[in-house]
Amino acid sequence: MSLPSATTGPATAGPDAAGPATGDDPAGRGGDVHAAWLPPEAFAPLGSRRVLVRGDGVLVDTVFDEVERACARHGGRADRTAGDRAVDLVLALRDAGPLPAAATALARAAGADGPLGGEGFALARAEGVTVVLADAPAGLLYGLFHLVRLGAAAFEGDHPVRRHAPAMALRMLDHWDNVDVHPVMGQVERGYAGGSIFWRAGAARRDLDRVRAYGRLLAACGVNAISVNNVNVHATEARLLTDRLGDVAELADALRPYGVRVHLSVTFAAPVVLGGLPTADPVDPAVRAWWAAATRRVYARIPDFGGYVVKADSEGQPGPFTYGRDHADGANLLAEALAPFGGVVHWRAFVYNHRQDWRDRSTDRARAAYDHFAPLDGRFRDNVVVQAKFGPIDFQPREPVSPVLAAMPATRLAVEFQVTQEYTGQQQHVCYLAPCWSEALTFAPWGPGGPTVADVAAGSGPGPAAGGGLAAVANVGDDPFWTGHPLAQANLYAYGRLAWDPGLDPVAVLDEWIDLTFPASTVGDPALARETLHAVMDDSWRTYERYTAPLGVGFMVSPARHHYGPDVDGYEYSRWGTYHFADRDGVGVDRTRATGTGFTGQYPPPWSQVYESLSDCPDELLLFFHHVPYGHVLRSGSTVIQHIYDTHFAGVQQVAGMRQRWRRLAGVIDPAVHARVAERLEEQLRCAIEWRDQVNTYFFRKSGVPDVRGRTIH
Amino acid sequence: MSLPSATTGPATAGPDAAGPATGDDPAGRGGDVHAAWLPPEAFAPLGSRRVLVRGDGVLVDTVFDEVERACARHGGRADRTAGDRAVDLVLALRDAGPLPAAATALARAAGADGPLGGEGFALARAEGVTVVLADAPAGLLYGLFHLVRLGAAAFEGDHPVRRHAPAMALRMLDHWDNVDVHPVMGQVERGYAGGSIFWRAGAARRDLDRVRAYGRLLAACGVNAISVNNVNVHATEARLLTDRLGDVAELADALRPYGVRVHLSVTFAAPVVLGGLPTADPVDPAVRAWWAAATRRVYARIPDFGGYVVKADSEGQPGPFTYGRDHADGANLLAEALAPFGGVVHWRAFVYNHRQDWRDRSTDRARAAYDHFAPLDGRFRDNVVVQAKFGPIDFQPREPVSPVLAAMPATRLAVEFQVTQEYTGQQQHVCYLAPCWSEALTFAPWGPGGPTVADVAAGSGPGPAAGGGLAAVANVGDDPFWTGHPLAQANLYAYGRLAWDPGLDPVAVLDEWIDLTFPASTVGDPALARETLHAVMDDSWRTYERYTAPLGVGFMVSPARHHYGPDVDGYEYSRWGTYHFADRDGVGVDRTRATGTGFTGQYPPPWSQVYESLSDCPDELLLFFHHVPYGHVLRSGSTVIQHIYDTHFAGVQQVAGMRQRWRRLAGVIDPAVHARVAERLEEQLRCAIEWRDQVNTYFFRKSGVPDVRGRTIH
Repeated sequence: MSLPSATTGPATAGPDAAGPATGDDPAGRGGDVHAAWLPPEAFAPLGSRRVLVRGDGVLVDTVFDEVERACARHGGRADRTAGDRAVDLVLALRDAGPLPAAATALARAAGADGPLGGEGFALARAEGVTVVLADAPAGLLYGLFHLVRLGAAAFEGDHPVRRHAPAMALRMLDHWDNVDVHPVMGQVERGYAGGSIFWRAGAARRDLDRVRAYGRLLAACGVNAISVNNVNVHATEARLLTDRLGDVAELADALRPYGVRVHLSVTFAAPVVLGGLPTADPVDPAVRAWWAAATRRVYARIPDFGGYVVKADSEGQPGPFTYGRDHADGANLLAEALAPFGGVVHWRAFVYNHRQDWRDRSTDRARAAYDHFAPLDGRFRDNVVVQAKFGPIDFQPREPVSPVLAAMPATRLAVEFQVTQEYTGQQQHVCYLAPCWSEALTFAPWGPGGPTVADVAAGSGPGPAAGGGLAAVANVGDDPFWTGHPLAQANLYAYGRLAWDPGLDPVAVLDEWIDLTFPASTVGDPALARETLHAVMDDSWRTYERYTAPLGVGFMVSPARHHYGPDVDGYEYSRWGTYHFADRDGVGVDRTRATGTGFTGQYPPPWSQVYESLSDCPDELLLFFHHVPYGHVLRSGSTVIQHIYDTHFAGVQQVAGMRQRWRRLAGVIDPAVHARVAERLEEQLRCAIEWRDQVNTYFFRKSGVPDVRGRTIH
Repeated sequence: MSLPSATTGPATAGPDAAGPATGDDPAGRGGDVHAAWLPPEAFAPLGSRRVLVRGDGVLVDTVFDEVERACARHGGRADRTAGDRAVDLVLALRDAGPLPAAATALARAAGADGPLGGEGFALARAEGVTVVLADAPAGLLYGLFHLVRLGAAAFEGDHPVRRHAPAMALRMLDHWDNVDVHPVMGQVERGYAGGSIFWRAGAARRDLDRVRAYGRLLAACGVNAISVNNVNVHATEARLLTDRLGDVAELADALRPYGVRVHLSVTFAAPVVLGGLPTADPVDPAVRAWWAAATRRVYARIPDFGGYVVKADSEGQPGPFTYGRDHADGANLLAEALAPFGGVVHWRAFVYNHRQDWRDRSTDRARAAYDHFAPLDGRFRDNVVVQAKFGPIDFQPREPVSPVLAAMPATRLAVEFQVTQEYTGQQQHVCYLAPCWSEALTFAPWGPGGPTVADVAAGSGPGPAAGGGLAAVANVGDDPFWTGHPLAQANLYAYGRLAWDPGLDPVAVLDEWIDLTFPASTVGDPALARETLHAVMDDSWRTYERYTAPLGVGFMVSPARHHYGPDVDGYEYSRWGTYHFADRDGVGVDRTRATGTGFTGQYPPPWSQVYESLSDCPDELLLFFHHVPYGHVLRSGSTVIQHIYDTHFAGVQQVAGMRQRWRRLAGVIDPAVHARVAERLEEQLRCAIEWRDQVNTYFFRKSGVPDVRGRTIH
């Protein structure tokens, strides 16, 4: 019996594994959890100031507590009342009363352009005083963490007034955490960082210090919502909505001081399985009444509850189809119950035939989300967010952007990413995903220069609908480094930052993360550390792509629950609708209108033509859209078969180079971080070699075409 | 997540599933367990006689109890003392004192050729009296069940004296039952008939009625030994040797009346894990003393304990290699401890590199048993049985006979079969295996006309060693039909019968089984039932072979724990050493001396030459020994590729025919049996179609050669 090393390797090492903190201990946990991007050293510039915090409310208290702790450590001084003493940093709500003279002018200038919004803030500096202003407490909290990011620069020279506000109102993480340990999927479905920080073996874990520490990290990167249980809602988890609601309320209480609202994944069958009704039919008055009452009870306990997440009629989950209703009927049912309280439904568009017959080439899973949802555009209530995966299949390392995102102008759409590295190395491999997400967010579905995917998600696309923001599957667990692979922390950080500002450059985001996580004062050779981290991480997603499935064809991964390591034919004869159709002559999926499944027709022009065209289709998506002979010449000038060989040899070489470079950081950074990453780079190299050899051998055996460079293909 | 239907299907339906008894209730279980080949009707001819049973001892008591119960039901009369009353059946030990006059002459004649042995018996009939004589109680028990098999014929006309004795002294079943439910392998490793009849969820099950019913079935087919736990010995199971020994003793007590001795699988590391010693080195005096003492304690509780079964240094199990010792050192250690009590060690020859690199074509798993064991010939103690799987790999539907069986003339060898259908349809498919075993047993390793594999196992081969008999992995569980698939009962029955007499014709054995299991008095149309059962079962092994891996190449099965359903490349890039090397030009494993791994050289002539030769090698083993182009013409006249297509289409057609024929038995036989078989034939057809389509498509994609008959290949 063979298991992938991901399930037996260091990811499951748990709390006994090496996990010294470089860091702070805001939650009093005794230093056994890594500080991630909030080590105390990151607060040094701020902590040496004379600081005035003005305003009331729990989030302002959080701001003050942060400032006070930083000042206690670094010699500064924190006040909440404006006395006669000189200050050099002011963090204030605009309606909090008079500010020191030096700050007043700045405050006036900052507010000149109108309200800052519920989460926005303005920052300026003049006459030796730095001022952060907000209209609402959450804005002040985000302003604080912005100061931390700026570091010493926030207190040098003058800064003209700059206003900051998130592009997206909803910046959400979905936890696929189970309350019970699922017999196949475990405590966290697709979790690669140990157990859940919320649940353990059937019960709430109640490690609220850890939950608070998590909320703090989320606030510092901009995430403002989480759902606390798996979208596959099993029996015990269903009851979080009713008799186990107290467990959810406890999490909400712990996260509230960090501006993070709690959402819940619910089962559409709840009226039946929890309420004892004979039906869950969305038009049944008793069903509507049941949801209304259940929701009322939720808000009685959790006044700022975010809403429901639903995976319906997909992969075996119950849904409205049972009753002859559609997704709009289903989503609107829950939206109706949530509307009085300001809650939203995240309704996943991940719906497809998961019992496909591999012999049937007319069914195309890529078409499914569009086919199911596009016809429903305009039928969803305002507080329904249709949550679509960024690509049409399932979080592969390379997919085109989903055509659904351009097809529902009258619907609030959220774009869903996967921070947990299910198909991208399971946090055994370095795979910095921000470049992938950035490509998707800046993609212009109606052609270059037009609105982007980020615009759609932000509600500034061509349609009238508000934006659904971003959602993503979380990658944290009870691992002392939070994410198993310490460098996978950067994915969580970058996800939050891109949700706040999708225009950010992924490499610049990585720089932020490096500055925060590896403060110069804690690193032997900061320049070397930065250079190495960039060298190892910047291109790591494309490196992963190189040594895995070629040219966008996807799914050559070990099937069933594994999804780790190569198995070229692993899905080829399965019911999952993910095929590559390689034969002795060629490979790829014909999704053209002319001769294939017609999926290209789901895109608006120009992309429908670009993808349809064998000569215009981007190389990296060629096999997603076309079945071509091995000798087909790519836009790059290489043949498909030679490209496969070249990229697989190159990918392994790059991983070997990453491992080599990482060795130079020994003794330079925190030895626990260094050791954990070093150990995983060994596994990454082993696995990359396996990918290279299996993929190359597979295609050599099929094509019979030798490598023009004469390298070893087994 | 996809699971094979074998794990979710009716096999696990448990005691609530349909399981009405046609049958007897010898163990007072209330008729919820199928009577298999011992329904009360099978005892009708015997039960209407006036019977005298003579002799003492527990096994003679068993004989008398059987006779008495049959007579009570069918109007006969059973006595244990020879009074004046007339008898027409005598079952007697020869030293049990005077017999009725009519029997005395027959007894003299029957004994003229010397002793009958510990398990033999003689049968004769004259002057209206049938006589069964034995020298030992076990012989009388086997004689009784022989009478049952003969039925009415035993009481008609005269029968000259005929002596019967088993060809093999050891006729053993290995239960791969776990005490604990193993997280991956479950309660019974490779069990397809529900839970264990011995263990449940960490404890002894104590359903001794069921164990006795099992012992009775074993005695009636000739099995005289079982090991009661898995050869992969986990922590709890290891303790059956020590503090859990009482559980084993209880099973031994229940099985003793049926002549079945109990053996135990032990871990070679027992002195360390149970005894607290620092080593398990076989030459260490403390280790030898530990085994001696442990074994003494076993025999104090179980005086007729059979011995130990060991899987050492294989697939992760501990063994003598840890201490730089070899298998002879290891086996002899345990043999020394068992010798004073007459116990034996079954030491498995299933040893190979299970962490092979698929890139390395020089390592050949087929060579492993010979390479490891042949050099040790002559070094094993007399009470060591080296237990070798019949083929060089692992119970595939088609393998050549293992060359080990011809390579150790000075070693007691047992041949191991697999009654449980791990690779042969998991008791979802009809696959009557006796023809496969018969082929192996009658194979002549030194050439046609010479000694056979059965001779080697019986100790009548060319070497001086005694025979190790047969061993086989059991196929029963707590399923009401014992074996999940009711027709799989025939495999267990046939295994015992072939161990008793390996020269039996598998079709004749099936006739015996049909007569016993479906007595004419219980069947609507006996001729139709017999014809249908033969039509469905006789050729079912070859049918299974046709629609699965072609031409002896093996392992195109779903990997890891599944081993059910097709996955052509499932093992192709794995560490298990089981590859087919299919590319666009051809397929097969070159095991020749000239250009391959040299495995053919492990056979004595003529087989070394036959297998080495591309033209002489039997078609059904061609791809086991040779890598050939798809256009290679077989001895049958067909090309390899066309043979693949033809056999796969034919195999499915045959399964469809089996299903069709089975329908005609509705209303003819026990409806519960009919329904269970009918349901599994549906699954078999579904699965056979999947095999056909995946294998045909795989090879069509690789070869590009169309089917000359133009049938659909997807």
